[in-house]
Amino acid sequence: MFRTAELGRKVSKEEFERQKEPLRIELLELQQRLRELDMPVILVFAGVEGAGKSESMNLLNAWLDPRWIVTRAYGAPSDEERERPEYWRFWRDLPPKGRIGQFLSSWYSRPFMDYATGTIDEGAFDDQLNQVIAFEKTLADDGALIIKFWMHLSKTAQKARLKALEKNPLESWRVTKRDWRHWEMYGSFMRAAEHLIARTSTGEARWVIVEGEDHRYRSLTVLCTLRDALRHHIERDAQRRAVTAAIAPDRAPVAADVVPAPVVTGLPTVLDTLDMTQSLPKAVYRKTLSTEQGRLAVLHRQAQTKGISTVLVFEGWDAAGKGGSVRRLTHALDARQVQVIPVAAPTDEERAQHYLWRFWRQLGRAGRVTVFDRSWYGRVLVERVERFAEEDEWRRAYAEIRSFEEQLARHGIVLCKFWLHITKDEQLSRFQAREDSPFKSWKLTDEDWRNRERWEDYTHAVNEMVERTSTHDTPWTLVEANDKRFARVKVVKTVADRLEQRLGETP
Amino acid sequence: MFRTAELGRKVSKEEFERQKEPLRIELLELQQRLRELDMPVILVFAGVEGAGKSESMNLLNAWLDPRWIVTRAYGAPSDEERERPEYWRFWRDLPPKGRIGQFLSSWYSRPFMDYATGTIDEGAFDDQLNQVIAFEKTLADDGALIIKFWMHLSKTAQKARLKALEKNPLESWRVTKRDWRHWEMYGSFMRAAEHLIARTSTGEARWVIVEGEDHRYRSLTVLCTLRDALRHHIERDAQRRAVTAAIAPDRAPVAADVVPAPVVTGLPTVLDTLDMTQSLPKAVYRKTLSTEQGRLAVLHRQAQTKGISTVLVFEGWDAAGKGGSVRRLTHALDARQVQVIPVAAPTDEERAQHYLWRFWRQLGRAGRVTVFDRSWYGRVLVERVERFAEEDEWRRAYAEIRSFEEQLARHGIVLCKFWLHITKDEQLSRFQAREDSPFKSWKLTDEDWRNRERWEDYTHAVNEMVERTSTHDTPWTLVEANDKRFARVKVVKTVADRLEQRLGETP
Repeated sequence: MFRTAELGRKVSKEEFERQKEPLRIELLELQQRLRELDMPVILVFAGVEGAGKSESMNLLNAWLDPRWIVTRAYGAPSDEERERPEYWRFWRDLPPKGRIGQFLSSWYSRPFMDYATGTIDEGAFDDQLNQVIAFEKTLADDGALIIKFWMHLSKTAQKARLKALEKNPLESWRVTKRDWRHWEMYGSFMRAAEHLIARTSTGEARWVIVEGEDHRYRSLTVLCTLRDALRHHIERDAQRRAVTAAIAPDRAPVAADVVPAPVVTGLPTVLDTLDMTQSLPKAVYRKTLSTEQGRLAVLHRQAQTKGISTVLVFEGWDAAGKGGSVRRLTHALDARQVQVIPVAAPTDEERAQHYLWRFWRQLGRAGRVTVFDRSWYGRVLVERVERFAEEDEWRRAYAEIRSFEEQLARHGIVLCKFWLHITKDEQLSRFQAREDSPFKSWKLTDEDWRNRERWEDYTHAVNEMVERTSTHDTPWTLVEANDKRFARVKVVKTVADRLEQRLGETP
Repeated sequence: MFRTAELGRKVSKEEFERQKEPLRIELLELQQRLRELDMPVILVFAGVEGAGKSESMNLLNAWLDPRWIVTRAYGAPSDEERERPEYWRFWRDLPPKGRIGQFLSSWYSRPFMDYATGTIDEGAFDDQLNQVIAFEKTLADDGALIIKFWMHLSKTAQKARLKALEKNPLESWRVTKRDWRHWEMYGSFMRAAEHLIARTSTGEARWVIVEGEDHRYRSLTVLCTLRDALRHHIERDAQRRAVTAAIAPDRAPVAADVVPAPVVTGLPTVLDTLDMTQSLPKAVYRKTLSTEQGRLAVLHRQAQTKGISTVLVFEGWDAAGKGGSVRRLTHALDARQVQVIPVAAPTDEERAQHYLWRFWRQLGRAGRVTVFDRSWYGRVLVERVERFAEEDEWRRAYAEIRSFEEQLARHGIVLCKFWLHITKDEQLSRFQAREDSPFKSWKLTDEDWRNRERWEDYTHAVNEMVERTSTHDTPWTLVEANDKRFARVKVVKTVADRLEQRLGETP
């Protein structure tokens, strides 16, 4: 795989100087055009030590406008990073739309080192590379341009390069014993690299292998690749816009009456299987709720000590009692350990990122409880039904959500997802009661009435959501909520049960 | 001071139940009204261990809508927090406008413990309390409602409370040896508390001493205080708006021709003292720049190893060459260690906070270089001249900025502030050159021409800015930038000199 990167290709000083100025001007122009577009650029630099990874990043910073470039390298995670799933640190560093992010020792670093040094076997390596592929696909599907540079040196060239660095008093600090140890393992590193590049070169995010020996050749290769990709991506974006404008000039949400009905209506959904008559008498409710709250308090205290985090998702019909259930839950918990996140319209910083970004950023530190009052499922519920998201956007969201939640589960986070269900009649009487109450009337908006008109569409969306995202590790709990007391107890008890189970698995 | 909080006041269960419902409803209503207003609420809970601090926070979370409450408690700082000035962790947790933040073991905790346990003397304690006062004043001036609850117990009552907790199997974990050690030091703790409360009870942020023995009395006191303060604050805000609307119905920026001239014009300013003829021949420039860049590279490498961070501020006339200077600087630095922050219009998340918040959040980790291309000085420059900020807002900004920069300096951060100065004629010829260049024309906007018309006002504002914010530890460097080469070398050399000086002070 690397033979073509050991040809000893060089660029003369004159040739480099000749190409430099027009290339730089075009890159600056492209960067400027990029700023107005709805997509970020993600550059990954990886490869052999000494092959010019950080030099290339420096060059980019020097030639382009560094104000619109985010540069990140990763060492050992900080304690705040260790307390979240591994990819949290990458998500929080992603460049917003219109900017370039360049990453060194990125999401490839740990799997690569683990495999090259024999810490993990090929199966585990592949498993981790699949995560990488899913991550990059998620970003590329959202419009990101991803280019990955593998900077290569032959074993002899690497030796010469390390020696040269050691001789230079200004650079000698860059060469460590670890570099020489790795040099001796050159063979295993290259085998790991071949496997990695073959597996993760995808249509969305390709690897470019760069011969790293001559710094002028290497620089031109990186910069010309970037220029061509930017040019192509920007043009494609313009075409895409033109097509969209021609097909659907008005991207505003379509009015209720023209939303097509779900393909098949009237068939029973998962919501029809619920026994909506379940209820609890007041006395039983009081006693059970307080017992379960007590249980939850003790269990969460234990989870906190062990650093086990909890993420709770509340979805449900308007007026189904989400707020009330959340309050009964938080009542049992230490306020310092809980954060309730109300999910409404995204802020402009959030809009400049992938839609999952705003949920990643809210994940709490070890041992905390994070409650999402509405969640990432908005994409396959309200955004789908109201057509705020394109069909391909919400369709691929199921896989994106599964991947996100798998990462939470793998990190040991307890994830409970609640759909609070009420019947259409029950909703009507609650709406009417809200209208009449001086304290609750602010809770009822025109939007609530509008959503109600799409009951069928929502039912269909909920059914598909449960079908596609209820897994063994991250199940949905459907809560029969016509009786508020029954619902609240079920919610608190479910969280306590899940915590108990999780604590049972942890020594 | 605490005698009035040892009266054994109690509230009966019946009385509590009678008051509970209407109080809760009013609090929920006030919280709802608060959400539409332009101010956050900050509650601090401090006091004797066992007097009900965290119970009060839990109660607030249970009675109010927890979605609009941020609850924070502070233990040992995380490594990411330790690498920034002490208050970074508080700034990043501040509630946005319209929300309530409740804080335990807040900015009072460390100074209080240090003084009570004899680690610092009264002088140092006062010094830290002055920081607290400045911090709270900054927030209050921006509209925040701040209430601080000191929860009190007599020595006997505290003993009884700790004993009772120890007996309860569900609560016994809460009592540690440390609590008993502190109980034995009750006297010193109370003396420290009296001093703290006396010093930091200000008009903007008062302390409310709460007798903590009876939980119903304590809860009602906290909640009624909050209710009254919210009511009062919301009413005052409405009045303020009414007055503003009457006086200045149109708060949009005033057109250029009606901006009053500075009080005294034509007098020489600090900018007039610069020798604008200074320049460097090309050959000297190339050699000197590369020498200084090399020096800077080595010095920054040392600073990075020692964890010394650098913050650079670039202000200056449009077209003065900020971008070019920044690029010559970053060229000498490892791209992974530098972040350039372009300061433009704030995002909506930033607008929901104090104007300094968006700069606090950008401070980098230990050893990094953070470059602000325009900065917090916008408030006393463009916002002042264009009247985006009210006069009292920009006037108090000088003190706020000094306090912010003092905190950077105290943390050991190297702060360099550059004003890039060009003459009015030089600016004109650069504008014209930009108009003619196909690569640079995007850099020139109508705003640039408008700003140019206010040259006098800006000069006056710059003079006052330098006068008020150039201190020994955080000096302004005025850069004679009519000759770009001279300016770039001066910038790079200044940063290198400051780093060298700082490294000389660090063993």
